[in-house]
Amino acid sequence: MNDIFTNRRSIRKYSNNPVSEELLDSLLEKACRASNTGNMQTYSIVVTRDEAIKKALSPCHFNQPMVMSAPVVLTFCADYNRFKKWCLLRDAEPGYDNFMSFLGATIDAVIAAQTLCMAAEAEGLGICYLGTTIYTADKIIETLQLPKGVVPITTVTLGFPNETPEQSDRLPLEAIVHKDIYSDYTDKLIDELYSEKEAREDMKRFVAENGKTTLAQVFTDVRYTKKDNEYCSEVLLRVLREQGFLE
Amino acid sequence: MNDIFTNRRSIRKYSNNPVSEELLDSLLEKACRASNTGNMQTYSIVVTRDEAIKKALSPCHFNQPMVMSAPVVLTFCADYNRFKKWCLLRDAEPGYDNFMSFLGATIDAVIAAQTLCMAAEAEGLGICYLGTTIYTADKIIETLQLPKGVVPITTVTLGFPNETPEQSDRLPLEAIVHKDIYSDYTDKLIDELYSEKEAREDMKRFVAENGKTTLAQVFTDVRYTKKDNEYCSEVLLRVLREQGFLE
Repeated sequence: MNDIFTNRRSIRKYSNNPVSEELLDSLLEKACRASNTGNMQTYSIVVTRDEAIKKALSPCHFNQPMVMSAPVVLTFCADYNRFKKWCLLRDAEPGYDNFMSFLGATIDAVIAAQTLCMAAEAEGLGICYLGTTIYTADKIIETLQLPKGVVPITTVTLGFPNETPEQSDRLPLEAIVHKDIYSDYTDKLIDELYSEKEAREDMKRFVAENGKTTLAQVFTDVRYTKKDNEYCSEVLLRVLREQGFLE
Repeated sequence: MNDIFTNRRSIRKYSNNPVSEELLDSLLEKACRASNTGNMQTYSIVVTRDEAIKKALSPCHFNQPMVMSAPVVLTFCADYNRFKKWCLLRDAEPGYDNFMSFLGATIDAVIAAQTLCMAAEAEGLGICYLGTTIYTADKIIETLQLPKGVVPITTVTLGFPNETPEQSDRLPLEAIVHKDIYSDYTDKLIDELYSEKEAREDMKRFVAENGKTTLAQVFTDVRYTKKDNEYCSEVLLRVLREQGFLE
């Protein structure tokens, strides 16, 4: 049992071993048993196996090879479309075209996603989250034909592993955990908390390969730049307006 | 292993059995092993055991009794404060004061939360999510002294169970899952998908107790009203501006 928690790594290379409909349904059933707001289940899961649709999704995920190589691609969406339709058919006036409803539905979608991932790992499958979903939500909406009220939040590729990568590092627990209230970080503490990460050979290589002088610069100048973040933020806020969550 | 996925229920009543620091740390370690965006770990977990601080948090959660009765209250926060401080100390210019960064950090915080919940349930503990966190984010920020760059996303109460409640119902899988692309719901399908829920005796009681004629009206008119949602949305958007995620 401990294994799925402490021994895990994201899997980006998948074997030819197929994922049966029966196994996949059992994972989806487990995901839907997870906690959710008010038992409204305001999320949807789009399960894509079709090669042509995976091909159309691929550029939305910057052509990361997992989209094509994984037997299953799961797009988890915040979804008030179904719930609103039910309300309107039951003489009830829905008031869910706002930011709070979007954020609540987002939380529910991610709880379902992570439950599915852990259920999959417990069965020996491997998963990888694609953070690209919120960078290209507009294109994913088009590709998966998501109606108003639905916003894609995260994507998981799923299959049996064909690799055993190194586990990635993590910050020490005291970097993440605060006792009772938040205690802000001094410069000295930041130095301490990041020292192990910065001293790793793979991180030093990563800095050198990117022609930078510090690891933080690889993030700010190469991987997660202000310019890209601001562009994607504009797209995302437009998506929220168009999908009816900022009325 | 199946038990933590298929047999679970939220726990709102806790025994006097204490949660040791050692057990709690092991759960937090597992939570921090979960997937996260670019291994930036842009989330924080505030672990509150102190009675006075739990008392201050209680009204933020509408005085739901779990806040005081659970031995541990965990507030999961989207957190770019730590990462930004690190960037600034390393000659790197952070570009994370935008909505996309907020949403990415939110996803990471929820993945960590749900991983902790499943790890806790695997150890025989019980959890309950408090959706109230995003209704009163401004007050939680004040109570937990969250600095700029930090927004509370969800709260989990944790302890050993002192009850075995009924499992709540779920919509059939076909309500949630779409094959390849999204297929929108017809009125007839909505009727079918909600028929089992609406026929339940507990739901009929719930409708009667609230003086409504349909179950959907209990949600729209009592539990999750347009007025409350819109008020909370305004607060949330102000919080995002104040915490530096809508610059």
